[in-house]
Amino acid sequence: MIKAKVVGAGGYGGVGITELLLKHPEAEIGCLVSLSDTGRKMSDVFPHLRGFCDDVIVSPDDPKNAEPYDVVFFSTPDGVGMQTAADELARGAKVIDYSGDFRFGSTERYAEYANFIGRDPVHKAPALLSETVYGLAELHDITETQNIVGNPGCFAVSCILGLAPAVAAGIIDPKSIIADCKTGVSGAGKKPNAAFHYPNRYDNMNAYKLAGHQHVVEIEQELGLLGNDDVQITFTAQVVPVCRGIMSCLYATLDGQKADEVVEIYREFNRNNKFVRIQDAKTPASIADIRGTNYCSLTVDVDERNNRLRIISHIDNLMKGQAGNAMQNMNLMFGLDSGISLATAGQYP
Amino acid sequence: MIKAKVVGAGGYGGVGITELLLKHPEAEIGCLVSLSDTGRKMSDVFPHLRGFCDDVIVSPDDPKNAEPYDVVFFSTPDGVGMQTAADELARGAKVIDYSGDFRFGSTERYAEYANFIGRDPVHKAPALLSETVYGLAELHDITETQNIVGNPGCFAVSCILGLAPAVAAGIIDPKSIIADCKTGVSGAGKKPNAAFHYPNRYDNMNAYKLAGHQHVVEIEQELGLLGNDDVQITFTAQVVPVCRGIMSCLYATLDGQKADEVVEIYREFNRNNKFVRIQDAKTPASIADIRGTNYCSLTVDVDERNNRLRIISHIDNLMKGQAGNAMQNMNLMFGLDSGISLATAGQYP
Amino acid sequence: MIKAKVVGAGGYGGVGITELLLKHPEAEIGCLVSLSDTGRKMSDVFPHLRGFCDDVIVSPDDPKNAEPYDVVFFSTPDGVGMQTAADELARGAKVIDYSGDFRFGSTERYAEYANFIGRDPVHKAPALLSETVYGLAELHDITETQNIVGNPGCFAVSCILGLAPAVAAGIIDPKSIIADCKTGVSGAGKKPNAAFHYPNRYDNMNAYKLAGHQHVVEIEQELGLLGNDDVQITFTAQVVPVCRGIMSCLYATLDGQKADEVVEIYREFNRNNKFVRIQDAKTPASIADIRGTNYCSLTVDVDERNNRLRIISHIDNLMKGQAGNAMQNMNLMFGLDSGISLATAGQYP
Amino acid sequence: MIKAKVVGAGGYGGVGITELLLKHPEAEIGCLVSLSDTGRKMSDVFPHLRGFCDDVIVSPDDPKNAEPYDVVFFSTPDGVGMQTAADELARGAKVIDYSGDFRFGSTERYAEYANFIGRDPVHKAPALLSETVYGLAELHDITETQNIVGNPGCFAVSCILGLAPAVAAGIIDPKSIIADCKTGVSGAGKKPNAAFHYPNRYDNMNAYKLAGHQHVVEIEQELGLLGNDDVQITFTAQVVPVCRGIMSCLYATLDGQKADEVVEIYREFNRNNKFVRIQDAKTPASIADIRGTNYCSLTVDVDERNNRLRIISHIDNLMKGQAGNAMQNMNLMFGLDSGISLATAGQYP
Repeated sequence: MIKAKVVGAGGYGGVGITELLLKHPEAEIGCLVSLSDTGRKMSDVFPHLRGFCDDVIVSPDDPKNAEPYDVVFFSTPDGVGMQTAADELARGAKVIDYSGDFRFGSTERYAEYANFIGRDPVHKAPALLSETVYGLAELHDITETQNIVGNPGCFAVSCILGLAPAVAAGIIDPKSIIADCKTGVSGAGKKPNAAFHYPNRYDNMNAYKLAGHQHVVEIEQELGLLGNDDVQITFTAQVVPVCRGIMSCLYATLDGQKADEVVEIYREFNRNNKFVRIQDAKTPASIADIRGTNYCSLTVDVDERNNRLRIISHIDNLMKGQAGNAMQNMNLMFGLDSGISLATAGQYP
Repeated sequence: MIKAKVVGAGGYGGVGITELLLKHPEAEIGCLVSLSDTGRKMSDVFPHLRGFCDDVIVSPDDPKNAEPYDVVFFSTPDGVGMQTAADELARGAKVIDYSGDFRFGSTERYAEYANFIGRDPVHKAPALLSETVYGLAELHDITETQNIVGNPGCFAVSCILGLAPAVAAGIIDPKSIIADCKTGVSGAGKKPNAAFHYPNRYDNMNAYKLAGHQHVVEIEQELGLLGNDDVQITFTAQVVPVCRGIMSCLYATLDGQKADEVVEIYREFNRNNKFVRIQDAKTPASIADIRGTNYCSLTVDVDERNNRLRIISHIDNLMKGQAGNAMQNMNLMFGLDSGISLATAGQYP
Repeated sequence: MIKAKVVGAGGYGGVGITELLLKHPEAEIGCLVSLSDTGRKMSDVFPHLRGFCDDVIVSPDDPKNAEPYDVVFFSTPDGVGMQTAADELARGAKVIDYSGDFRFGSTERYAEYANFIGRDPVHKAPALLSETVYGLAELHDITETQNIVGNPGCFAVSCILGLAPAVAAGIIDPKSIIADCKTGVSGAGKKPNAAFHYPNRYDNMNAYKLAGHQHVVEIEQELGLLGNDDVQITFTAQVVPVCRGIMSCLYATLDGQKADEVVEIYREFNRNNKFVRIQDAKTPASIADIRGTNYCSLTVDVDERNNRLRIISHIDNLMKGQAGNAMQNMNLMFGLDSGISLATAGQYP
Repeated sequence: MIKAKVVGAGGYGGVGITELLLKHPEAEIGCLVSLSDTGRKMSDVFPHLRGFCDDVIVSPDDPKNAEPYDVVFFSTPDGVGMQTAADELARGAKVIDYSGDFRFGSTERYAEYANFIGRDPVHKAPALLSETVYGLAELHDITETQNIVGNPGCFAVSCILGLAPAVAAGIIDPKSIIADCKTGVSGAGKKPNAAFHYPNRYDNMNAYKLAGHQHVVEIEQELGLLGNDDVQITFTAQVVPVCRGIMSCLYATLDGQKADEVVEIYREFNRNNKFVRIQDAKTPASIADIRGTNYCSLTVDVDERNNRLRIISHIDNLMKGQAGNAMQNMNLMFGLDSGISLATAGQYP
């Protein structure tokens, strides 16, 4: 059995990976760590887990936190993973970090990202950047040799999966990309906040962070690598009153390709990506199709009148955008089938 | 493998049991029948099932419908099951019917129920009423010898589980019961309707069927059997803007019992009921705790100042109130552990 | 022009009375006071007021707060009004207080209330209790001679209006009353809180404060006065995912009266109450009928089988349950028509 | 008093203009016409209007429909207005039509539009097209001489107001425009429909009509006129789970202009447009700011890195997008202040 530790167990990312570990036939929860809910049972913090996970959450100072585990999930804010990942690796654990700490291949890219979120641009564990990989299995080959992974940002997953086939095929102008992205509220985390107080959020929607969103850095890094060219996108983050789900509309100028041709490019690119579903513009699609699951659903369309690619990318921000993708990475890092604990249909309605 | 047929596959009850059958290690879907979506793939009607259930839905006239199956789920309106259940039983199937057709032990009770919903009070298969059982395993011993089951109504499940321990213990006045029940919108089914059109339903709530709700008949039947006395309840159905979930507040006059004593009675009654969770009034509980699962969560409370029992009963109307409970019945009718495909935690948030 | 001061302008109660004052042809806003948003424009805190109310919110220490006004609305937590109301009265203002400070006719009742909410049971301005009135114009004659009013609690308004006609007519057993009350989330105020964080609140509902809700004290006081008999109710507070609205189901044992008779008693009682609408159980009603308005809609029903009164009371908790009712009181305290700025239809959908 | 007739009174557009007429000091409702709710009181169809509008809805065959009125609102599907508007004009009425019948200046543009919605491309009242005007007062001078107006489409209002200043100033490439538009569900009207059934719509979002949306025709017509150049946009309609509100993100390539400069162009263009509010990207804005009102709120932003204009346009689709704008037109057609019955703040939360 793979023994897992979850750091940041009291948040949405922590409970998400806990739910998936509970369903995993070859993994078990070894330790739940959190600053905020120390001493409480996981099932008191999250009553839906009663009888499934009644473990007590420990503080980082607890001796249990210092024991060795096979895998450690850092569902923690930026800056935590880079300070303790080396210790975990030294104790033999594989590390999957949800923050931006290990998403970037260079200290320069990291500094660019850190500036967006007002953090110290100096990375605290630069040596690890050459060992980490951007944790999106649809773009990078993640195998048993991989010991540390930077799990991607939720918006970034929706944009990169939506644009990668076109960028890889070289059919779009890399300077013409616009990403108009709508997220559900769970993307902002569990901490209460005036913007997400129910009376302010129901029947409401708004754009935010117009000055710049940090996920742009990793989107441009990954698409740039893929297309062997600089990519520069206009990105608009918006929040709508759903709990789970991101719907990103992605636009870019084509070189004359027709819809059928582009659909075929997308199908081909994803031939082995079990969590990506491709459909054309005639097939209905919605967030409900993938809610609660690790699937990404891409509607591939071309506005032929304007010679413009239009992709509608749908994911569950807490699954393919966070814990589900982390579990997919864990499976691959242990040489298991990537779909274990993940390849199930959601629930409707 | 248990080969299952689902009649009424195009509705919420049909897709619910389909989702559970797909997860069941000892069952498989043999045939999906519906009047409305004939000829379409199940996954075109319910896109979240793409890759999981791409079977074509057949009409009742299709030869496939006439083949023998091990179990047949009738997720159909009242009156359908009573006309075809005998044929299915004759072909060797076990039958689980979601409607009121097989919930009543006598033609008189059935007539009372039929009057509430404006149907012919004459039962079409009276001979089967002595073979059927009210399909709530917490009250009736359902075993491999059982071939036909009347799956209970959703409101009824929440009320009966909430009141059964008190009625069985004889601690409440059976004429004093008030059931104030709030349901999510999915309880009304998949067919669009002015009352459940989004702009009318968001930010809204209302009581309905004040003249009388048909679920009262089965609640009074079951509690009457349990308490060996006539039970007569005041019942108020209400709808609130949630998708899944019933929260019933149940009141009745006690004979001086204190809260601790009553909590203990509820714990004892449910000692072997794995899908019933009991908590006292100090423990927070909400619909979110059981959303998407087969669990019933009961908060047991006493208003000692007024000598009144107060139970808050929470279920997912589409799971313990419908498909989940049907799956629990199937497991028992085939001698399996009742929790197969059901005993998992939900997803939060 | 009536010059008004609003203390607590930054909350829902403050913005509600501000909206109504802006529409009032004989009143104007003189001063907006708040602890939390001092120095900001009202329209920066509430952008829907841009161009309508761009006044700067001042702190209680601001000289502007010490100027005389014709009316002062205390939209403040318990304990604020009782410390400063005397000063306002001395400066010639009429006072309308939203908290429990001035709802009770005696220091004993106040102490009972204070215990529920964990406050010092000793009232700080006991002399004012003989001058104040419970601010529900449907029960008390509020005229120009009235200088101080305790605006009622939102749940209390829905329950008292729903039960008053029956209690006054002496047709129900005052010990048999059960109030099952569902509120929208805005009732909890503007301050963010884990329970009302959107991802926890959407698609969720729960009961709370089962140990006892402070509004019970004023309901029992008012109904006791009306019926000349002690009233003791069982009260269950619940929250459902709507923003505005309270729906209370009220039950009590009748003395044999039929529905028609009871409907007539309710019509007669409310003949001059322009904000109360009565309908029988056959007329559809919902929260949407009164959302955004000062109306209370009562569905009057009798469960004749069980000889039980059943009233469904609908109000907007921020209007008839708070700011709207306060405006109604202001109008009466200044000898104006009670409907000014209030007697308009809502908006649908 | 202006005597008004509302054709299509039973829908959202009809009830919207009814609410506004009830508040208008110089107008009154003369006749309510509908096919679907004939013989019912308006307040039985819309209970929030009880006591405010208890008029009986008549059928088009009713003699009352043939009487003369000062203004007729056609809140009807495409094709109705063009068949009866001439008669109404002949009887001396002014006509405001909500459909596409009178939005286009030529039969060619109309044919283009009609093709999108699968209607006969031959206009039935071509002579009226030279008398009508596109009913957006921010672009066209609507005065007492105007007798017929084509009220704009809701998406079109949000896009045209959002782009007009930039197009008029000639600062954007007219072939580079992308309009990514999210609407609330009320935009689809009152008729129940599987897509807008509450359980399918809550916690869901999707794009639709990817093949082409009819509002594009009027956007291109109006912006083309304004910019004296052909405009060709990529338009994506999406629906999110709010009731009221459209948020359109509008993108176009600039010619090097900076944000401050563009904000100033927008302020100048709207100097006399009382229902348009301009803010820069640093000022928070959301649908809640304008919900229930006739205001359009524009956030004006420039992605300087990519030399791209980004406008976030917020309207209430049933007000500035429909009935509110129609009332603004009525006021102007009768020489009244355009803000009568409209220039009020909304309600929050």
